[in-house]
Amino acid sequence: MYLTGFAKHINSNFSFLKEKKLLIAISGGIDSVVLTHLLHQLKYNISLAHCNFQLRGKESDLDEVFIKNLSKDLSIKAYTTQFKTEQFAKELKLSTQLAARKLRYDWFYELTQEYDFDYILTAHHADDNLETFLINLTRGTGLEGLTGIPVINDKIVRPLLAFSQEEINNYATKNNIQWREDASNAETKYLRNKIRHEIIPSLKELNPSLLESFTKTSAFLKQSQQIVNDKIKEVYEEIISEDRGILKINISKLVQLSNPKAYLYQLLKDYKFTEWNDVYHLIYAQSGKKVSTNLHTLLKDRDFLLLLRTDKKSPSNQEPIIINKENTRITNPINLLFENVHQQKKINTNSIYVDKNLLNYPLSLRKWREGDYFYPSGMIGKKKISKYFKDEKLSVFDKENIWLLCSNDDKIIWVVGKRQDKRFFPTSKTTELLKMSI
Amino acid sequence: MYLTGFAKHINSNFSFLKEKKLLIAISGGIDSVVLTHLLHQLKYNISLAHCNFQLRGKESDLDEVFIKNLSKDLSIKAYTTQFKTEQFAKELKLSTQLAARKLRYDWFYELTQEYDFDYILTAHHADDNLETFLINLTRGTGLEGLTGIPVINDKIVRPLLAFSQEEINNYATKNNIQWREDASNAETKYLRNKIRHEIIPSLKELNPSLLESFTKTSAFLKQSQQIVNDKIKEVYEEIISEDRGILKINISKLVQLSNPKAYLYQLLKDYKFTEWNDVYHLIYAQSGKKVSTNLHTLLKDRDFLLLLRTDKKSPSNQEPIIINKENTRITNPINLLFENVHQQKKINTNSIYVDKNLLNYPLSLRKWREGDYFYPSGMIGKKKISKYFKDEKLSVFDKENIWLLCSNDDKIIWVVGKRQDKRFFPTSKTTELLKMSI
Repeated sequence: MYLTGFAKHINSNFSFLKEKKLLIAISGGIDSVVLTHLLHQLKYNISLAHCNFQLRGKESDLDEVFIKNLSKDLSIKAYTTQFKTEQFAKELKLSTQLAARKLRYDWFYELTQEYDFDYILTAHHADDNLETFLINLTRGTGLEGLTGIPVINDKIVRPLLAFSQEEINNYATKNNIQWREDASNAETKYLRNKIRHEIIPSLKELNPSLLESFTKTSAFLKQSQQIVNDKIKEVYEEIISEDRGILKINISKLVQLSNPKAYLYQLLKDYKFTEWNDVYHLIYAQSGKKVSTNLHTLLKDRDFLLLLRTDKKSPSNQEPIIINKENTRITNPINLLFENVHQQKKINTNSIYVDKNLLNYPLSLRKWREGDYFYPSGMIGKKKISKYFKDEKLSVFDKENIWLLCSNDDKIIWVVGKRQDKRFFPTSKTTELLKMSI
Repeated sequence: MYLTGFAKHINSNFSFLKEKKLLIAISGGIDSVVLTHLLHQLKYNISLAHCNFQLRGKESDLDEVFIKNLSKDLSIKAYTTQFKTEQFAKELKLSTQLAARKLRYDWFYELTQEYDFDYILTAHHADDNLETFLINLTRGTGLEGLTGIPVINDKIVRPLLAFSQEEINNYATKNNIQWREDASNAETKYLRNKIRHEIIPSLKELNPSLLESFTKTSAFLKQSQQIVNDKIKEVYEEIISEDRGILKINISKLVQLSNPKAYLYQLLKDYKFTEWNDVYHLIYAQSGKKVSTNLHTLLKDRDFLLLLRTDKKSPSNQEPIIINKENTRITNPINLLFENVHQQKKINTNSIYVDKNLLNYPLSLRKWREGDYFYPSGMIGKKKISKYFKDEKLSVFDKENIWLLCSNDDKIIWVVGKRQDKRFFPTSKTTELLKMSI
């Protein structure tokens, strides 16, 4: 009965997973265990990945044992790992929750690269989605905050997003599935707890099929968001030009739009202005008036609004950050970890391996300049950074946020988080291996 | 203190009301009384309109007395009227709530016409807006259901929409304002009550400035909705053509859009399809496949989706509805009320006055046909109905929903709800006056 509903949904909406190599992120809780049983029954090609965050002592270890047993019972390959989460969180000055999240996803992506998985599957469901919606609603948000958890983004797929916690519970009961109660679930944080145990039950009293309605609502909002994005892209092309890193917004074209404020907000929302009324007033202000944040200034200049960097230096003129040989970790302006390792795993965009003896210290971390070039991994020969950014379709904003890690002689080692330079690749002659991670 | 915040907001956001003639819809409850005091203090040109719905016996009468006294105290003109609401609701087979709403707004529009008011002001506030949002959310909705109550639509303006009930209460206290407690408020319907007294307080515990955040959210969503509308209008022009009342959607253009489903939904959402998955499947289906509702059929026809009427008759071939001389009210297919009256007030789009002796019975109510013409009020000479519809920019869907009231000799008396025909206008020679209202 429940099997049929679930199976039908998976087979009709996720048929693209059928011939793929799938990695299920499994905690041992009911949701991820049900997802595993379901896809196992439907004969998808799955493996399991379980993180032991060592946050709940013996309970965490028992979770790990449970996953190993499940793996044996179902004859599914399971990858497990243990993290010193608290220590990592302290070192990176992150909350435990964020640290666990970073550890988890970095590791999943590593496994994906190492063993050629096509997708990572998580067991998020409709209740999670509604909770996220309501949390964003209480905080104040725009359409993008109400479109909910995506079914697919990048390599992550969430096949259970259309099902409620209750349906998952029923499926587990009917199919006699065992799982591990997650103690942290019962004492989850105040906010989500209140929404889960107080607000959502109240809303369900008003409409017992709340989750079903909400799933439709969420899908409609995602569609509307996509239409907004299409229109904004079109308007961007029409009214914005870029001149040496400065965005120029054509005001006479802007004011011809049905709602210039709405469009200006959408065009500039990534730049973190807070005084939007002041921003809107610039449209009709005198030449020379401006609104600034720490990072950017929007300047009225005759028929244009110019978006400039507030510090007046172009990114290339900022002082580089120096990294000495003894630095094993920096946390400012970005988190960067240097580890001596013995073995190289496949790379992902969050970490690279280099031959330590090829590096000339001190290293520096700086923004890009005109004329920069590098030898991108996976490509033949050298390439201008400006050309690389253009090919990657990065916005002015994205480009300003990218750091280049350079050697003492200013050779680029890593376009951080994007692409490694081949010149520092480990070779068969490498004796000391250095792993760099963000 | 509170005066300053309110006054500043009104003066900076509603300055367009300053030189206008304004009619405040006033119940006697705290919200509308505060709005009245506030605009009175700010010296706006206001009058009051109060309906006594006679639903709460003596209490209703005391409300009316309260308004009359307030009018004297502040030296503001007040219009009051009494309705037999229950009787009207029974006759029109409407809920009491809907009947009161219809009576109220019809009368407000009548006053607006008769005394040349520019705007009708209502005292809806941020809590009302959030309640409406949450009600729609529980029912399941799209973006349009989450954009909330509009600040301005047509002639109705809601100056307090950015303020919370609490702020309004504080304003009343600080300014020593008296109002009438509305007994029906305390025992309001289950749904709104639960949202007001249980769900919103819970959400406020999570974020004390919930309403402020929500007001911003609501404004952002309205902006997104407008961007969606702009894009859909553009896409409509690009991919839809109209041929003798049939909409033709160009599939090869549709599938080039980023998300054909999202666009197809937006283009067709007024046609009340429920099986949207079936509708989407038509894009790739064989020629001849179709999806139908009671009213419409969407048919795959080679490279097009055709939107046709399900009953296969064109609207002009449907049987007209006959109205005999003794009919004083019909309720099917639309509500239409005929009253002998002695005095003519200014017309509005919901009612017309005709010279009863010019009518040849039986009248008929029918859809338009090619070749129909009439003598529209406010214009010189005659005009084809098709031309009139085109000038009014009506969609195929709108046109199908319009009724023509015709005399026995098939002369058009009224394009119902839109425009009267001059040939039946009362003149100085008129002895019997008939009022027709929807």
